[in-house]
Amino acid sequence: MNSQNSRPGEFELIERYFAPLAGPGGLGLLDDAGLLRPGRGYEVVVTADALVAGVHFFPDDPPAAIGWKALAVNLSDLAAKGAKPEGFVLTLALPRDWTEDWLKDFAAGLGKLAGQAGCPLIGGDTVSTAGPLTLSITALGTVPAGRMVRRSGAKPGDVVLVSGAIGDGALGLKVHGPGKPGWVAVLDEEQRGFLAGRYLHPQPRTALADILQRHASAAMDISDGLIGDLAKLVKASGVGAEIDLDVVPLSAPARAALMADPALAELAWTGGDDYEILCTAPEGEHLALVSAAAERGVPLTPIGRILPEAGAVHYIGEGGAQVFAHGSFSHF
Amino acid sequence: MNSQNSRPGEFELIERYFAPLAGPGGLGLLDDAGLLRPGRGYEVVVTADALVAGVHFFPDDPPAAIGWKALAVNLSDLAAKGAKPEGFVLTLALPRDWTEDWLKDFAAGLGKLAGQAGCPLIGGDTVSTAGPLTLSITALGTVPAGRMVRRSGAKPGDVVLVSGAIGDGALGLKVHGPGKPGWVAVLDEEQRGFLAGRYLHPQPRTALADILQRHASAAMDISDGLIGDLAKLVKASGVGAEIDLDVVPLSAPARAALMADPALAELAWTGGDDYEILCTAPEGEHLALVSAAAERGVPLTPIGRILPEAGAVHYIGEGGAQVFAHGSFSHF
Repeated sequence: MNSQNSRPGEFELIERYFAPLAGPGGLGLLDDAGLLRPGRGYEVVVTADALVAGVHFFPDDPPAAIGWKALAVNLSDLAAKGAKPEGFVLTLALPRDWTEDWLKDFAAGLGKLAGQAGCPLIGGDTVSTAGPLTLSITALGTVPAGRMVRRSGAKPGDVVLVSGAIGDGALGLKVHGPGKPGWVAVLDEEQRGFLAGRYLHPQPRTALADILQRHASAAMDISDGLIGDLAKLVKASGVGAEIDLDVVPLSAPARAALMADPALAELAWTGGDDYEILCTAPEGEHLALVSAAAERGVPLTPIGRILPEAGAVHYIGEGGAQVFAHGSFSHF
Repeated sequence: MNSQNSRPGEFELIERYFAPLAGPGGLGLLDDAGLLRPGRGYEVVVTADALVAGVHFFPDDPPAAIGWKALAVNLSDLAAKGAKPEGFVLTLALPRDWTEDWLKDFAAGLGKLAGQAGCPLIGGDTVSTAGPLTLSITALGTVPAGRMVRRSGAKPGDVVLVSGAIGDGALGLKVHGPGKPGWVAVLDEEQRGFLAGRYLHPQPRTALADILQRHASAAMDISDGLIGDLAKLVKASGVGAEIDLDVVPLSAPARAALMADPALAELAWTGGDDYEILCTAPEGEHLALVSAAAERGVPLTPIGRILPEAGAVHYIGEGGAQVFAHGSFSHF
């Protein structure tokens, strides 16, 4: 059972690093399955994301950041759907050269967010692979029956809003990754650290879940870029939109980067890795949404309006009307 | 969005091959999440398995068989826990050289079992990988609250039973895989086909779920070999067992293989890939279990008894007492 280099075996590994992340429904990760007990009148919202080393993260990224982000991207989906996180399942395919140190740090990063979000590990599987490290998380949340916030509920006249600031993740990837472009040198250390942190440690907007459930007509999280994800939302809703790019919220470090290189605006709007919430709400109702979010410390900014014309999104702003050839990142 | 060789993009791929597998809770796979609506008083049982090409299946296995088996191994876990399958989530990491034909057949095999089991696809993620094809399925089932059948419920005096026949999967792997050992030639075509089929197309014992829930004190599915999985069950239950290896049920083709090479008995007992149910039931109650299973067309065979001595499993039989150095397959 034990392997070369005295690395722990599959069962020791689970016991040592993953069992501490398990909630009561995980049954100590000693059974074939985990349990979830939704309250009466609640439904279960299920979302999954797979991450592959070299595609979704750099193989030498800090393992704690990889663990954090793998769960964060799923919690971001649950938040957008108005769901309270209840538990998650992890499957992990480890490459031949995995080390116990890597795994320990990975589990620590994962466990930190799991603890913060009240979302314990309830099951999983650990296998070996001849390829890059690959992991898949399925996160489970609950909503009162019939209250999951869909992509498809936007109506003409609704206000379009985004949480937080857009573009930090995509800019942070450039700051963090190899082959840094020239504008990175213009930023100071704090600005660089902020952007890289937004890429490596996205904060899922869990605090907005119940507010969206009450006030939003449609919502999704922004993982593939504002422009591309908005295209999906309007398509699912059978509507169009008009967006004022001048009011899309940017963080101070992102503004500094765009000052250094104005062409970065397109990267900010299309690059992805935002893990902010894109949502719509009926006119008037959107004010309740904004103020409830503000009470939780999360800014929500109106950036446009839903139009009846299906599929068409008009981007306006100082630069004039805009067209985007590549709406979002696609894996193929 | 579209890729080289006019292969479909991520969204076309989902629409073409996976959306047809989606139930109402999958929302057409067009939203960020799927929905599960457990009945009042029901809990959700969650299980996950990852499969990697070259580790869990041969890369050139029929794609329909890979799709079937990926879901089957999860439904097998749900059945063992007494849970009714309700839906599943698939994450798929496709290697650079994937083809549309492969994916079409994979989805067909997956969809065939999903349809048969009433277990629709409710969500997932498709990504690319520089490594081997890797897939992860999380299956969700429901049980009346408090009725999930644990590994840990076996009590001294309980009868130990297994469903179907043991060893076909491990023998079938030898028949199906490269470098066929000598005994394979002794079998006729039908016998070889039977064993290979048991390896490639395991039939999850979904029919036993509610029966186990009513009568079993403990259960798990046998994926890593009878000997190894029984060791896990007695460990979780804090008990021991005495097993008569002479009564462990074998299929006629497996018996033919063991006649050709008696040393195969150990492979049959330890090799895994059975996807049969290992369970325990109080003396007397086990007869109700056996007869209810027989009514569903599934043989359940008593093979031994639970003993109070924690952790010790005594194997008896014509060959005398046995010791097994390698209880089961471990990934490390």
